[in-house]
Amino acid sequence: MTRPGIDDIEAARAVYQPLTQSVRTLIDTLVRTEVDLDSARAAHAHIRKALDLLGEKVMPGSFGTCSDLQQRGEPWGNVVIGLRNPMALPLNIVDDSPGQVSADMHVGAAYEGPPGHVHGGVCSLVLDHVLSAAAYQPGRPVYTGTLQITYVRPTPLGELRAEAWVEHEAGRKTYVRGRLVSEGHTTVKAQGIFIRPVD
Amino acid sequence: MTRPGIDDIEAARAVYQPLTQSVRTLIDTLVRTEVDLDSARAAHAHIRKALDLLGEKVMPGSFGTCSDLQQRGEPWGNVVIGLRNPMALPLNIVDDSPGQVSADMHVGAAYEGPPGHVHGGVCSLVLDHVLSAAAYQPGRPVYTGTLQITYVRPTPLGELRAEAWVEHEAGRKTYVRGRLVSEGHTTVKAQGIFIRPVD
Repeated sequence: MTRPGIDDIEAARAVYQPLTQSVRTLIDTLVRTEVDLDSARAAHAHIRKALDLLGEKVMPGSFGTCSDLQQRGEPWGNVVIGLRNPMALPLNIVDDSPGQVSADMHVGAAYEGPPGHVHGGVCSLVLDHVLSAAAYQPGRPVYTGTLQITYVRPTPLGELRAEAWVEHEAGRKTYVRGRLVSEGHTTVKAQGIFIRPVD
Repeated sequence: MTRPGIDDIEAARAVYQPLTQSVRTLIDTLVRTEVDLDSARAAHAHIRKALDLLGEKVMPGSFGTCSDLQQRGEPWGNVVIGLRNPMALPLNIVDDSPGQVSADMHVGAAYEGPPGHVHGGVCSLVLDHVLSAAAYQPGRPVYTGTLQITYVRPTPLGELRAEAWVEHEAGRKTYVRGRLVSEGHTTVKAQGIFIRPVD
């Protein structure tokens, strides 16, 4: 699953970051557009052309990792933080202090569950990733063992903050808590146990 | 949040279902493409044109609901099942028996977390939705109270099955269990408590 290196990472970034952002905007716009059906059909023709161009040579399977990117801690295909994945919010995780992280994000129309609100499963997706990030230490990867999500109140679409912090460690287990905050209110709480594989 | 009705739902469906599928393929292709940067730039130009067309008239906020679609139980903007949301797998949930549902799906490169595997948060997103569907009864909506996810083993990208079933009910609470199954193995288990709002 490790891909060959990328010749010029910065040149690739300069093309793929804005391209991915445009597709991200396209997703949001497709959900919200109110143009007539003829305009939608014309847009579809352009998307087919983009697909023809990008689809001419496609790697099998998934993006996986590439040694150059892995060294930089940049999984470009990742669904939550990937530079080349338009489904990624993307989440920009900040290390606030050892074992404590946060991320401020805008969650738009494409993440809707109940009308006007973030899908509960998207809340758990974000919390899974942020709690993992709090448990992570360089050179010591962890995987999620269990995750418990408590929905305190509905989470409105819009500006959202995720926070996570390590409570304690015991052997190979790291106990982490976290929450989502919307307009000063905690909307979802989480606790997770993250496990370090045996060396 | 309830939108005005759609003049001709079937005409809209005939345009938006294939358009959304093309954007879904575009997301997957953007993650996996290996074309040169000039081709990627040319694809970007087409995507900008599609955006110009679709962005000419956009509803504020999110898709929310529309009375015609709500009657049919079709939230077109929903991130997991929405006809107009290319982030949706989409999940096609089947009622196997009262209180028991399942969904077979293909989870592609765009849902990657660990290389070659489904992001743990995507597993929880799918389980949240499928457990909710098991708890749902017509005219009796529920919201997720708590959700507990246990990761048994990594979930490979590819064909995946989600199952959920009601264990028991107590007052306004419905206790539900579920799991993800990949190639005959349970990879993730879930249990949730779903709550019916006071009438």
